[in-house]
Amino acid sequence: MVNYPNGKKASVTHNPTSFADRGMTLEKDINQTNDYYLSIDRAVIHKKPTPVQIVKVDYPMRSAAKITEAYFKLPSTTDYNGIYRGKYIDFEAKECAVNTSFPLKSIHAHQIAHLEAVCRHGAIAFLIVRFTSRNITYLADAMTAINYIRTCGRRSIPYEWFTENAYEIPYNYVRPVDYLKVVDEVYFRENA
Amino acid sequence: MVNYPNGKKASVTHNPTSFADRGMTLEKDINQTNDYYLSIDRAVIHKKPTPVQIVKVDYPMRSAAKITEAYFKLPSTTDYNGIYRGKYIDFEAKECAVNTSFPLKSIHAHQIAHLEAVCRHGAIAFLIVRFTSRNITYLADAMTAINYIRTCGRRSIPYEWFTENAYEIPYNYVRPVDYLKVVDEVYFRENA
Repeated sequence: MVNYPNGKKASVTHNPTSFADRGMTLEKDINQTNDYYLSIDRAVIHKKPTPVQIVKVDYPMRSAAKITEAYFKLPSTTDYNGIYRGKYIDFEAKECAVNTSFPLKSIHAHQIAHLEAVCRHGAIAFLIVRFTSRNITYLADAMTAINYIRTCGRRSIPYEWFTENAYEIPYNYVRPVDYLKVVDEVYFRENA
Repeated sequence: MVNYPNGKKASVTHNPTSFADRGMTLEKDINQTNDYYLSIDRAVIHKKPTPVQIVKVDYPMRSAAKITEAYFKLPSTTDYNGIYRGKYIDFEAKECAVNTSFPLKSIHAHQIAHLEAVCRHGAIAFLIVRFTSRNITYLADAMTAINYIRTCGRRSIPYEWFTENAYEIPYNYVRPVDYLKVVDEVYFRENA
């Protein structure tokens, strides 16, 4: 790497996204894509609400009920599901800050079990993984990924596994994560 | 109506369910049924979490993040979806305290639009309506109900419409709302 004229090393610039927004960019991009799919009636796919255990609710006069004590719950399913071309669609989406591998701790065991169950019943199910510093997003078929996870004996999936076994999802201004283009090619055997 | 010997009129006894639990019995029954279906690997159908707009979160030391301000949001879809026999399943469930008709104000316009959209894409979609004082639960096909709603010019669906156009859902101790039995008969043309 060429250094600056003052002799300092050029540092890799990091994404200025704040801590609170970490992992949210992919979610926003998928939501925007889903809104677009819905607006042109191509598919009906939604993010499920964040599961929350509500403990206390105030009912103030003349205004909306206010939740004053609640806790995040572990999701028992994946974040996204819906219908496309008559098929049930189910997927989980994760951002990955590490360049070299995707840590498996970010996917819960019951989410794996859920993906296996919907596949047994005929779903199209997959993972969407974005390597944020590479700015590349992959679609990995759920059963292909799960078979690897079950047999690899590792705590992470190496980046190379994605380049060889998953599909890059194209970016588009109105469909930032145009995953249905990949779904058409992979699950409906077409060049869409 | 025959009066009591003391001359007082017999009053209709109301269900002692508290205000907070109103409308929750059907939800509990459906959740129990879905848990059973999941346990025998018959279907994967879940209730979506209640949508909540989170405003403030406390992160106390050494304990779980606590949501201290949040508000209920209007759901943009129905409450339940999943997969059964390879088909995408989508439904909304409502309890109805009125004996004679089901008030349409309890179903939002965007839920109707959502049900129409998933039907266009090939879903099996329906309403589950329980008339609580009659203790009877019906499954009404979504498009059949929506076509009636669009043309009837009424603010409610009369009870008789359900007896003529919907299907009674059998009760079972382990499957309190055994709606897949009706789904088999209505959408898969079988006597299950």
